Amino acid sequence: SVLRSMSPPSGSYELAHGFAIRGYSAEKPPVSTAAPDLPGGIQMHQGLRKGFALTNAAKEWSFDLSYSPEYAESIKPQHKPPKAIHERIAYYAIQTVRWCFDKATGYSHHKPQTEEQWLRRVIFLETVAGVPGMCAGMLRHLMSLRTMNKDHGWIHTLLEEAENERMHLLTFLEIRKPGLLFRGMVILAQGIFFNLYFIAYIISPKLCHSLVGYLEEEAVRTYTHMLNDIEKGYVWKDRLAPAIGINYWKLAPEATMRDLILAVRADEACHSKVNHVFSELKPHEDNPFVAGDDTVTKH
Amino acid sequence: SVLRSMSPPSGSYELAHGFAIRGYSAEKPPVSTAAPDLPGGIQMHQGLRKGFALTNAAKEWSFDLSYSPEYAESIKPQHKPPKAIHERIAYYAIQTVRWCFDKATGYSHHKPQTEEQWLRRVIFLETVAGVPGMCAGMLRHLMSLRTMNKDHGWIHTLLEEAENERMHLLTFLEIRKPGLLFRGMVILAQGIFFNLYFIAYIISPKLCHSLVGYLEEEAVRTYTHMLNDIEKGYVWKDRLAPAIGINYWKLAPEATMRDLILAVRADEACHSKVNHVFSELKPHEDNPFVAGDDTVTKH
Ligand SMILES: [Fe+2]
Ligand SMILES: [Fe+2]
Ligand SMILES: [Fe+2]
Ligand SMILES: [Fe+2]
Repeated sequence: SVLRSMSPPSGSYELAHGFAIRGYSAEKPPVSTAAPDLPGGIQMHQGLRKGFALTNAAKEWSFDLSYSPEYAESIKPQHKPPKAIHERIAYYAIQTVRWCFDKATGYSHHKPQTEEQWLRRVIFLETVAGVPGMCAGMLRHLMSLRTMNKDHGWIHTLLEEAENERMHLLTFLEIRKPGLLFRGMVILAQGIFFNLYFIAYIISPKLCHSLVGYLEEEAVRTYTHMLNDIEKGYVWKDRLAPAIGINYWKLAPEATMRDLILAVRADEACHSKVNHVFSELKPHEDNPFVAGDDTVTKH
Repeated sequence: SVLRSMSPPSGSYELAHGFAIRGYSAEKPPVSTAAPDLPGGIQMHQGLRKGFALTNAAKEWSFDLSYSPEYAESIKPQHKPPKAIHERIAYYAIQTVRWCFDKATGYSHHKPQTEEQWLRRVIFLETVAGVPGMCAGMLRHLMSLRTMNKDHGWIHTLLEEAENERMHLLTFLEIRKPGLLFRGMVILAQGIFFNLYFIAYIISPKLCHSLVGYLEEEAVRTYTHMLNDIEKGYVWKDRLAPAIGINYWKLAPEATMRDLILAVRADEACHSKVNHVFSELKPHEDNPFVAGDDTVTKH
């Protein structure tokens, strides 16, 4: 294709942009190390940005992602103080569910987890995390067909989030395959969560996006804890990242688990931001996360 | 972005590729006029091909499409003779539904339709046509999460089909907005069809893809009839194409309804081919319509 033939010789980004440090490779799509493009210091992942190419569906996914190491390192847990009623309901719902889930699994932010505990936790959560984006994307698609109105650009962003979460899951699965009991619980959880979210989204999209916004705040917090455990050498000391993750986030071949989790955390920060913004919009307002533009025009 | 800055000055494709004839502009994404890339003479539309860029979500859609005029003109109704049991069931089901629908709406392949009749027909059908791709894409996504297995690259192709059908709908809606009774029937049809297709897809994905394969054969036939009516001057004589369609398929500003319908028909031919191929695959086999490759590797 023409675009392909216009690509510079491979590797030339490496020097030009100063990548390939700390496990990040410089393969395309190119990432600028410029300031993050969203207020609040959140950077969009590539599926939502200009200039990426669809190259990997054969290998399971549509959009290669990557972040500059500086950006990925810079992410900190953030909190949007709940003000509107739907935000308060969402915030306290997520806090309650998290508290119960942590009690049931013996998790605490102040206590290191074993590798097995970490994997069990994140694999379970990622099977659930892929539901909201797909559910909302499908509902908006059907709504657009049914009411014969425009979608205003939301569908793509929602589906891209769903794909991203599914890739988190497949990446962790390359390290550990869960057993039968665990699989049963995953099926049960999806059955319950999909139906609840489906109904809730029909009733109040704003509430649902707030729920995801606050859920992803917790995800950033949890992955920050995991990074801390890795840095202290409790888990995955010098362990290389799974191959599928290296491919998906365009990491260097020698990338470690820490590099990988940095990328996952950057994704979660993006989802949190996107959903918090969606929760402030009416369903017929334009999606400000314009695919084809790295900057957000409205918020 | 880097890719953007590497783009050649706009308009330069025009001469290089010999576009911009018969209403087709040469704006990117570039289309080669080379031989169609699928056996059976079907060409993939851009969302399934290498080298496109995501530029238009803000304007409603993710993937610009375009076809060379030579290719679009060359499309003829095709038929895959049903052999396997699921193909026979699908074929006769579609023939039966089509026969009833034609009777109910007074349609015949041998009789010209008025502009109003044409629009009523295609608007109704396009509200239904956007369902299967989204339904199947969602089911495969949830299945991948739930069973913790790879999707093998099907999801993107299915969702891209759904977006394409939704764009057909929005394009026709720019010409005519339906009334209240019609709207009620659309809502009813979606409610029934979505649930039927959902259940059928869980039972037999092969049957469902055959259904869509044969449905789209009928769509190619119907749009060929419409093109015939346009060429004979019965409908839309010299009428310009709606703006949204010009944008979506990268037609020239002076493109006519005929140019637009040629592009729509090319889309339907692609869907028919894709779904017929999917109907021959087991759900865990790789999607041969590799996004990022213009050629089909398996079929
Ligand atoms: Fe995740
Ligand atoms: Fe997430
Ligand atoms: Fe269509
Ligand atoms: Fe179609």
